[in-house]
Amino acid sequence: VPVVSGEFAAIERLRALLPAPPDGEVGIGDDTAVAPASADPWTLLAADTVVEGVHADLGLVTLEDMGWKAVASNVSDMAAMGGVPARAVVSVAGPGGIDLDALYRGIGAAARAYDCPVVGGDLVTAATLVVTVAVSGTVDGPPVLRSGARPGDGIWVTGPLGASAAGLRRLRASRAGEDPGPVGPGVDAQLRAAHARPRALVAEGLAARRGRARAMIDVSDGLGADLWHVADASGVGFALDRVPVADGATLAEAIGGGEDYQLVFCAPDEARISEAFASAGVAPPLLIGRCTGAAGTGTCAGRPLGREGWQHPW
Amino acid sequence: VPVVSGEFAAIERLRALLPAPPDGEVGIGDDTAVAPASADPWTLLAADTVVEGVHADLGLVTLEDMGWKAVASNVSDMAAMGGVPARAVVSVAGPGGIDLDALYRGIGAAARAYDCPVVGGDLVTAATLVVTVAVSGTVDGPPVLRSGARPGDGIWVTGPLGASAAGLRRLRASRAGEDPGPVGPGVDAQLRAAHARPRALVAEGLAARRGRARAMIDVSDGLGADLWHVADASGVGFALDRVPVADGATLAEAIGGGEDYQLVFCAPDEARISEAFASAGVAPPLLIGRCTGAAGTGTCAGRPLGREGWQHPW
Repeated sequence: VPVVSGEFAAIERLRALLPAPPDGEVGIGDDTAVAPASADPWTLLAADTVVEGVHADLGLVTLEDMGWKAVASNVSDMAAMGGVPARAVVSVAGPGGIDLDALYRGIGAAARAYDCPVVGGDLVTAATLVVTVAVSGTVDGPPVLRSGARPGDGIWVTGPLGASAAGLRRLRASRAGEDPGPVGPGVDAQLRAAHARPRALVAEGLAARRGRARAMIDVSDGLGADLWHVADASGVGFALDRVPVADGATLAEAIGGGEDYQLVFCAPDEARISEAFASAGVAPPLLIGRCTGAAGTGTCAGRPLGREGWQHPW
Repeated sequence: VPVVSGEFAAIERLRALLPAPPDGEVGIGDDTAVAPASADPWTLLAADTVVEGVHADLGLVTLEDMGWKAVASNVSDMAAMGGVPARAVVSVAGPGGIDLDALYRGIGAAARAYDCPVVGGDLVTAATLVVTVAVSGTVDGPPVLRSGARPGDGIWVTGPLGASAAGLRRLRASRAGEDPGPVGPGVDAQLRAAHARPRALVAEGLAARRGRARAMIDVSDGLGADLWHVADASGVGFALDRVPVADGATLAEAIGGGEDYQLVFCAPDEARISEAFASAGVAPPLLIGRCTGAAGTGTCAGRPLGREGWQHPW
C-alpha cells in the first residue's frame, strides 16, 4: 500500500486507475460531475452497496473483485431496464490501511468493460469497508419495468442459474481444506469467476427490450425471490416448466442463490425475442415458462415455488 | 424501533417517509429509477458519504440530523455548480438495531426541502452506520466550475463562516458538562442548528451563476482548504481583505472549520452580482477579496493563508 499524505493526494492517485470521462466533460475534482444531457428520452438512476463481510468475503475474493462487483451490480440493474449505463460515482468508506489501489483497479476494470466512466464520489474513513456505487443511465425507448407482464407472456432467462452460489460454495470448501466435489474441465474456474466477477448482461437486456419484453429483472436475490417481484408487481402468476441449472450447480442454488445477474423477462412474442437476440449476436435466451392469470400462484413443474431468496435481516 | 420481517418490508415502510417522485416516473421498487430526460443542456452527478462517528457523532446530533446532512451535503455540491438537484438515491449500510425510521425522516425532510425526491437506493447490513447519497441535477446554462477564476475577479462568500464548527464546539461542551461560553440571545440555537442541520444554498448558487460567477465552491472542508481548491484549479492567487466570522464563532473556526456550506465564488462584475442576488430575493453576498495573478500565493489582510482544512487521514 503506497503511503499517501491525505485524502486529496489519494484521490489524485486513484483517479489514474479509472477511465477518464469523454473530452469536454467534468469528472472527479469539481463539486459535481458535469456531462451534456443525453438525447435519449429516459434517464435511469440506481445505487448499490457492497459491504466487506456481507457481500464480499475478502478471505474468498479480492479487493479488485469487490470493486468490480460494486460497479457490475449497478450496471446489471441498468441492463434489467433495457438501458445502458452512462456515468458512475463511487463512494468508499473504509479503514485507513486497506489497499485502495486494488479496490480502484477493480472499479476501473468494470468501468472500462461497461463503458461507464467514474466521474466522482467520495473517500472517507470508517471502521468497515463499505463501497457504494451510483450509476446514471439512459434508455432510447420506454424502459422495461417489473410491472408489465401479462397472463400468457412467455418467461425467459438469459442463461442457466446458480453459478455464483456454486462458485461461492467451492471457494468456501477450498478455504476449509475440503474437496469441493468433481466438475468437468474448466467448470471450477467458471463457477469461481461467476461469483468473483459477475458479468452484467447489457446487450442481452437491450435485445430483450427490442424483442418487446414487457417485464424484466436481474437475478440478484435468487430466481425464487426475483420472479415473485415481477409477478407481484405485474399482478400475474407464473408456471415454470423448468429451472435451467448451471453446470456444477445444484437446483437449490439455481432457485435460491442470488447474484447470478442473469436477466429474467416476460414477453408476448417468441419469434420477436429470438430475432432480437440473434440480431444482437448474443446467446438465445431460455424459455422457462409462462405467466398466468392466477396472481399469487407460482409453480415449477406443477409444484409451488416459494418466495425464497436472500434478504438482509432488517 | 418497529419490528420488521425483512429488507423488502423495511423498504416499503421507509418509502412512506419519503416524498414520492412526480406522476409518471418510477421511484423505489424497480431495478432503477426512471425519469424523463431533462430539457436542460447539462446534467450533474455527485455522491457524498456520512459515517457515524466520523461525520456525525450520534452523541451530539440525532439520526434525523444525520439523514438530513447526507442529502444536504450533496445538494450543496449542486448549488456550488449553480445547478439544482433533481433526484436522489440513498444507500444505507448499518447494524440491524438502529432506528431507520428516524434516519429516513431526516432524509425525507431534506428531500422535501430541496425538492429532490428519493427514487431508489439500497439497504444493507454493516457493523458501522454508513449513509451514502447520490444526487443527479441539472443546470440550464454552463455550470460554474472551480477552474474559471481570473486575476482581478472579486471573491465573495454568501455569509459569515464558522457557525458549524462553533456549533459542534458548543454541543461538545454541553455534553462534557462544561460552559460553552456566552453568546447573544438565540445565537446558541443557531450555531447548534448550523452544525446539526446545515442548509444548502441553492438559490444563492443560482444567483451567483446568473451574476456571471465564473468559479465557485461550497465551504465543506474549510475556507482555507476550499479557496485553495479554486485558486489552484484556476491558476490564480488570492488576496482576502477579511474573513467574515459568524456570530459566536472564532476566526480559527471561520477559516479552518468545514461544513458551513456557504458558497465562495469569483466573478468579474460586482454590479451584476448585486443585481442577481437582489432579484433572487436572497441576502447579498459579502465581498472578501480579489483574485491575483500570483498563483500559489494566498493572503488574508496581508498575511499568508495556508491550505488548512479537514482531510481524512488516507
